[in-house]
Amino acid sequence: MSSGKSLNVLVIHGPNLNLLGKREPKVYGTTTLDEINQGLTKFAQERGIQLRIVQSNHEGDIVDAIHQALGWADGIIINPGALTHYSYAIRDAIAAVDIPTIEVHLSNIHAREEFRHTSVIAPVSTGQIVGLGPRGYLLALEALLGGKS
Amino acid sequence: MSSGKSLNVLVIHGPNLNLLGKREPKVYGTTTLDEINQGLTKFAQERGIQLRIVQSNHEGDIVDAIHQALGWADGIIINPGALTHYSYAIRDAIAAVDIPTIEVHLSNIHAREEFRHTSVIAPVSTGQIVGLGPRGYLLALEALLGGKS
Amino acid sequence: MSSGKSLNVLVIHGPNLNLLGKREPKVYGTTTLDEINQGLTKFAQERGIQLRIVQSNHEGDIVDAIHQALGWADGIIINPGALTHYSYAIRDAIAAVDIPTIEVHLSNIHAREEFRHTSVIAPVSTGQIVGLGPRGYLLALEALLGGKS
Amino acid sequence: MSSGKSLNVLVIHGPNLNLLGKREPKVYGTTTLDEINQGLTKFAQERGIQLRIVQSNHEGDIVDAIHQALGWADGIIINPGALTHYSYAIRDAIAAVDIPTIEVHLSNIHAREEFRHTSVIAPVSTGQIVGLGPRGYLLALEALLGGKS
Amino acid sequence: MSSGKSLNVLVIHGPNLNLLGKREPKVYGTTTLDEINQGLTKFAQERGIQLRIVQSNHEGDIVDAIHQALGWADGIIINPGALTHYSYAIRDAIAAVDIPTIEVHLSNIHAREEFRHTSVIAPVSTGQIVGLGPRGYLLALEALLGGKS
Amino acid sequence: MSSGKSLNVLVIHGPNLNLLGKREPKVYGTTTLDEINQGLTKFAQERGIQLRIVQSNHEGDIVDAIHQALGWADGIIINPGALTHYSYAIRDAIAAVDIPTIEVHLSNIHAREEFRHTSVIAPVSTGQIVGLGPRGYLLALEALLGGKS
Amino acid sequence: MSSGKSLNVLVIHGPNLNLLGKREPKVYGTTTLDEINQGLTKFAQERGIQLRIVQSNHEGDIVDAIHQALGWADGIIINPGALTHYSYAIRDAIAAVDIPTIEVHLSNIHAREEFRHTSVIAPVSTGQIVGLGPRGYLLALEALLGGKS
Amino acid sequence: MSSGKSLNVLVIHGPNLNLLGKREPKVYGTTTLDEINQGLTKFAQERGIQLRIVQSNHEGDIVDAIHQALGWADGIIINPGALTHYSYAIRDAIAAVDIPTIEVHLSNIHAREEFRHTSVIAPVSTGQIVGLGPRGYLLALEALLGGKS
Amino acid sequence: MSSGKSLNVLVIHGPNLNLLGKREPKVYGTTTLDEINQGLTKFAQERGIQLRIVQSNHEGDIVDAIHQALGWADGIIINPGALTHYSYAIRDAIAAVDIPTIEVHLSNIHAREEFRHTSVIAPVSTGQIVGLGPRGYLLALEALLGGKS
Amino acid sequence: MSSGKSLNVLVIHGPNLNLLGKREPKVYGTTTLDEINQGLTKFAQERGIQLRIVQSNHEGDIVDAIHQALGWADGIIINPGALTHYSYAIRDAIAAVDIPTIEVHLSNIHAREEFRHTSVIAPVSTGQIVGLGPRGYLLALEALLGGKS
Amino acid sequence: MSSGKSLNVLVIHGPNLNLLGKREPKVYGTTTLDEINQGLTKFAQERGIQLRIVQSNHEGDIVDAIHQALGWADGIIINPGALTHYSYAIRDAIAAVDIPTIEVHLSNIHAREEFRHTSVIAPVSTGQIVGLGPRGYLLALEALLGGKS
Amino acid sequence: MSSGKSLNVLVIHGPNLNLLGKREPKVYGTTTLDEINQGLTKFAQERGIQLRIVQSNHEGDIVDAIHQALGWADGIIINPGALTHYSYAIRDAIAAVDIPTIEVHLSNIHAREEFRHTSVIAPVSTGQIVGLGPRGYLLALEALLGGKS
Repeated sequence: MSSGKSLNVLVIHGPNLNLLGKREPKVYGTTTLDEINQGLTKFAQERGIQLRIVQSNHEGDIVDAIHQALGWADGIIINPGALTHYSYAIRDAIAAVDIPTIEVHLSNIHAREEFRHTSVIAPVSTGQIVGLGPRGYLLALEALLGGKS
Repeated sequence: MSSGKSLNVLVIHGPNLNLLGKREPKVYGTTTLDEINQGLTKFAQERGIQLRIVQSNHEGDIVDAIHQALGWADGIIINPGALTHYSYAIRDAIAAVDIPTIEVHLSNIHAREEFRHTSVIAPVSTGQIVGLGPRGYLLALEALLGGKS
Repeated sequence: MSSGKSLNVLVIHGPNLNLLGKREPKVYGTTTLDEINQGLTKFAQERGIQLRIVQSNHEGDIVDAIHQALGWADGIIINPGALTHYSYAIRDAIAAVDIPTIEVHLSNIHAREEFRHTSVIAPVSTGQIVGLGPRGYLLALEALLGGKS
Repeated sequence: MSSGKSLNVLVIHGPNLNLLGKREPKVYGTTTLDEINQGLTKFAQERGIQLRIVQSNHEGDIVDAIHQALGWADGIIINPGALTHYSYAIRDAIAAVDIPTIEVHLSNIHAREEFRHTSVIAPVSTGQIVGLGPRGYLLALEALLGGKS
Repeated sequence: MSSGKSLNVLVIHGPNLNLLGKREPKVYGTTTLDEINQGLTKFAQERGIQLRIVQSNHEGDIVDAIHQALGWADGIIINPGALTHYSYAIRDAIAAVDIPTIEVHLSNIHAREEFRHTSVIAPVSTGQIVGLGPRGYLLALEALLGGKS
Repeated sequence: MSSGKSLNVLVIHGPNLNLLGKREPKVYGTTTLDEINQGLTKFAQERGIQLRIVQSNHEGDIVDAIHQALGWADGIIINPGALTHYSYAIRDAIAAVDIPTIEVHLSNIHAREEFRHTSVIAPVSTGQIVGLGPRGYLLALEALLGGKS
Repeated sequence: MSSGKSLNVLVIHGPNLNLLGKREPKVYGTTTLDEINQGLTKFAQERGIQLRIVQSNHEGDIVDAIHQALGWADGIIINPGALTHYSYAIRDAIAAVDIPTIEVHLSNIHAREEFRHTSVIAPVSTGQIVGLGPRGYLLALEALLGGKS
Repeated sequence: MSSGKSLNVLVIHGPNLNLLGKREPKVYGTTTLDEINQGLTKFAQERGIQLRIVQSNHEGDIVDAIHQALGWADGIIINPGALTHYSYAIRDAIAAVDIPTIEVHLSNIHAREEFRHTSVIAPVSTGQIVGLGPRGYLLALEALLGGKS
Repeated sequence: MSSGKSLNVLVIHGPNLNLLGKREPKVYGTTTLDEINQGLTKFAQERGIQLRIVQSNHEGDIVDAIHQALGWADGIIINPGALTHYSYAIRDAIAAVDIPTIEVHLSNIHAREEFRHTSVIAPVSTGQIVGLGPRGYLLALEALLGGKS
Repeated sequence: MSSGKSLNVLVIHGPNLNLLGKREPKVYGTTTLDEINQGLTKFAQERGIQLRIVQSNHEGDIVDAIHQALGWADGIIINPGALTHYSYAIRDAIAAVDIPTIEVHLSNIHAREEFRHTSVIAPVSTGQIVGLGPRGYLLALEALLGGKS
Repeated sequence: MSSGKSLNVLVIHGPNLNLLGKREPKVYGTTTLDEINQGLTKFAQERGIQLRIVQSNHEGDIVDAIHQALGWADGIIINPGALTHYSYAIRDAIAAVDIPTIEVHLSNIHAREEFRHTSVIAPVSTGQIVGLGPRGYLLALEALLGGKS
Repeated sequence: MSSGKSLNVLVIHGPNLNLLGKREPKVYGTTTLDEINQGLTKFAQERGIQLRIVQSNHEGDIVDAIHQALGWADGIIINPGALTHYSYAIRDAIAAVDIPTIEVHLSNIHAREEFRHTSVIAPVSTGQIVGLGPRGYLLALEALLGGKS
């Protein structure tokens, strides 16, 4: 998906992910969002990837951020949080900008409540990485980076 | 999930994956299963991972293989093919052996027919990597290896 | 619905409609939102209609805009975009202000994905104009204007 | 859809619409079908549109009328009445003749009984105009006429 | 529902009822439609009731007959046959003419196939008499006649 | 169902029917249960029918009454009230005693709330008379009596 | 709902509530029904409210009690226990007597098994107080008392 | 939930509640939100409760407000308006902060449209108070305050 | 099904099949109905089969035709077109006449829209031949002819 | 479940089981309830088991009987008859008393009507014995007795 | 589908078809699988068709057989037995090899249990022949052979 | 079911049961399959029953085993493991051989995940013994043996 020029990636953390590592550690682990972002930044720098990282509890902000990625981003990594299950607006934004997008979930959403089993975003994303914790973000970056397979 | 001693990983390819790269390239790409397995083997060797690779079109063989992983494997990577959607026998096998298991799908199953949106295996697996092509297997290995996040 | 005094109409464009004409032309055509708004403005001026035009990717902004129409607007034309399918908040706002409201969709939502077949807003709107492209907005204005039938 | 030569339009009124204006005025208003047809005729004459108007309580007659439109009509306006909700035969007829077709409903079918929320004809029509009373027919003519947007 | 002047009642037999008594006697009995009509006529004559009896396999004919009852009939007795389960057109006709209507079924439709358990006509009829064989028609006449309760 | 010897009929009124005529007259009319029973008794006496009339708000009492009808009753008329919609115990009792049973409802249950559209008792009863008010009981008696069709 | 004269309130405890405080303390707490009733009595006495308290495991008894409240009670507080989910007979009784009725549940029924999420009684009650333990009864009394808001 | 130190409570009013008392009085009554808030403030002051009151039509604002309650609030009272039925983001926020939360609805949502019967927030709240009008807020405060039961 | 005497077969083509070969060739092929009928006639003549061929867009006509087959036809071949999916009237007609009936569909209805997957006629037909194009009719004739298996 | 001291077992026969052996022999066989109870008593006496046997057509009686088993019974054998399918009150009673309970059905409920396939009691019982006729009760006793496996 | 060179056809009989003619003759007839295969062989030989016939009760064997048909078979005839209703693995195998495939069922699956009405294989097969007994196989061969229509 | 001659019984253990007692003891207990089989063998020997015991993770093997029981077995005891919930092939095999068959489950499948509540095999088995642990097998043997009830 990328070669020669550096890769630009937008990372989006959806609602409640700002509380990561501070609340419900049994479900979401103890790593904070800051630590995840630092890991992402380090991982990206080592590979010459440019990152923009956004966290918002507002669906509209996330739609705006996706639009603003147009013309800059080569890939999007998005953990839409609970919006995963009903935000057709985010789905349409991803479909519209047509940038390779990987959906990431920290926990295994298929082992939790029924309503978490369906992602309205999955059909328009490139792929999903689910249940692998914070590492999921790095694997997504690697997938966008392409390369040594 | 592993450290010090080398990691032992069972890789299972379910029904019809033996045709990979030979049929329906629009859906599944042009990489053959042999090529995927070579990539996996090389990737594993570079990291000191021991692999056992199994392909079968028989649900019972896959259940048997999972049982035989007991006491040897530190992780399982499984692409159950169409059995993903109805094989409660494989689900029970994974739940029984209690080995970290990552479900991999080459194509984005959520963008295909309705019946492919549900995995009866997902609730008992550790995580899923979906829609990222052959690289999905390598990312799964990396996730099992743990490490540099 | 109007006579003697000029007609005041609020026009609301929901999420992602700001990308109109720039993305997915096969679904949404090549007319931009600016061009639609210019057409609406010209059509309104010729008939002495006052327009307020709002575009937002934020559900809350749209609810706010509907509230602010109270006491001013004689009619509302709304294309709620993807919010059509789940925003009970917008539905309640329309029901609360009790201003004649016409729901407009550029594409034929009934010929697209299953989830687009249901509008939670339709039961509280006056009517719907669907699938007739940008002209749908003008027909909605004409319907609100009443007149020569 | 139209240019130079005059536009030929078939207008179809489905079952029970012959009682319009005579029964259930709270739901359907007080305008009779004759008055609607006179309005349509006048509106069409002013714009050089040729109309054929058909009313029937027989599904088969409506299918026949749609077939007979082949080679003559540039557009169809159809209010299928209750057949909207189950006549796959009319749906197939519209799909077969492939003439731009606008579905019109006098009342807001989405604010009525559950069974009226689904149109089996909508997926093969060009668009729908719903809930705008007799004016809906004129707006549909205008939409077929194309022009001044 | 009637008093002084004689009662006018339209009796409608839907599709396949012309075969009554000739086919599937285990389900429908051995009485022919002619015999039922003779029984009805005799019963009506004894009570000064005027009857119009219609049988048709055409939904449109039945809708037409209901319309033609306007201004004449004080009551309608209808056995819609298989149309019971899907003819919203007949439902709308009954709702439109607003004449007391009793739905009659010879067999107990609730003890037969699942699809026969739902009548789309029942919600707009006055009442139903089900499973009581040809006598059901006479009981319906008596109910319309009102009287000695 | 009857011949030579007099007909014995058990009449069962289910829960809340003791309030008939006293509450919710718009739904159930103004005739009291006593008046209905007097009408039934008079109608029965004129025809030499023996009646047993039971009203209970207890499902178990109704089951008991049906059992006690064994060996005495030639027919049962039952208005199970709200138990209509869930009492499989009454259903089994009727199926067990195998006495011709007619289910009566005063109001048109198909024009009321969704849950009232299904009778779990209907499949094992002989027939139903619905929506014809108190006269429904008399028509049911007449149906059991057989005779002059 | 009350003023001047004292308030009369019927309190109904449905099936299994007699075991309260003795069984399943994790779900229902350790307060016994006697203690709840003493609290209610004390609270009522302090405010001049007359109470009748009924506990029964019999649906029919509860229907009877509701009927007997007619002409005496100004309000009903009911915890229908498991009958909440299927007793349309109790629902009809409450609708018939038309006395303000508050449904109380000790535990949060929406956080328990799926079948407990639906109350067939809720649509005809005035309101519900759910998940607030024994205090729920006192809050219900206060709500019926009206007053100092 | 409270003792010794004063109780801090966050009160959240969701979308459209700012119109309370001004629109749709048949559904929501004539009390304005200001009046409700004054009642709450007075009631709180008399009992030494500290209140923060928030109204927003934006889901994201409500999520933010819940997060900001961390470390301050001993309880939350939330009327999520239409967001009740789809905002899994608010649900996750409440689950994350783990503060006792009472959901309040002014009208009896179980007696209104089908979609209002389900609250996605109820399973993670402590309890619900439904249908008791503005008093519901005071009862919720009292429940949080604990005390005289 | 036949022997000695010649076989009489009624062939029924349902709604829109008169357009065969003229419209939507991708779905239905380019063979016209006339050509199919000529093929059928030739095939029948060579085997001494008598054919009656009917095409109608009217459900009632098809029911009538089935009735008229009584006493003449030894078999029926029916392609009910879109009526396949809802015409319980045709279903009942086939069940009533009790003549061996084979349902034919030119296209593979199971590979098309969801609503085409269900045939209400299939349960009462002898068998189905689906997706084999015009040859399906000849195979059906052969099946009715019986013989050389 | 038992040892040393004798085993106390409550046996409950639900609605309509008093008719056993007298009605519907094809479904339920010809053994009467008395004969079953005699068999149980003999079997119990031979093994030193104390039995209490209850039959009732009243749900409330069964709930009461389960409550009264507290402190006496070491096990419960229950055939809830038709209440199996809807009595959440009996379910809650069994869950509350927490005594090992075996659900017995004489006939194979899974081979009968759809509604009989679901037992609301099964999730809280220890186990089920289904379709093995009167012997099912003895096997249940044996299971409660524990022992020689 | 074939011409000049001889036609190669793989015939697959799924689970339990080896018992054909020996068990359940009312459903499946009395012809044994051997007799069917002999009929097929004779029919094929007369037309120069090469057959491979496979019967297996193992899903995996059937998938293997389909794979092995690649490069040899011009057509497949498959009666998947009960696997029809859940074997997405066989479905994927058929889709992958892309050989014209006709699904055959001896009995009319649409007139049997609900679960037999859906074939997961039908959407990827060329066509289906259902309910025509052993002759169905010959008709399928004829369809693959193409020819004299 | 047996008398005079000794009873021959086939015992089938489905997928994953070979792990019994070794994995997930909380769900399945600590008894191994060998121990269960020894218990069965001893119990059978004492009663002169001949046993054949089969365990397989392959659906096809189980179908084969059931076929091979024809002519030898007087009864089958089957614990189909996860195949319980989808193997229509095993269902058909049991229906075909028509040997009395008892389905056994060690755990109470009705108290576990939703998908375990339905057995596709139950409708064709004689009966089920569920949730009674290893003893369930012995009770099943006893039931097949018939005798001392």
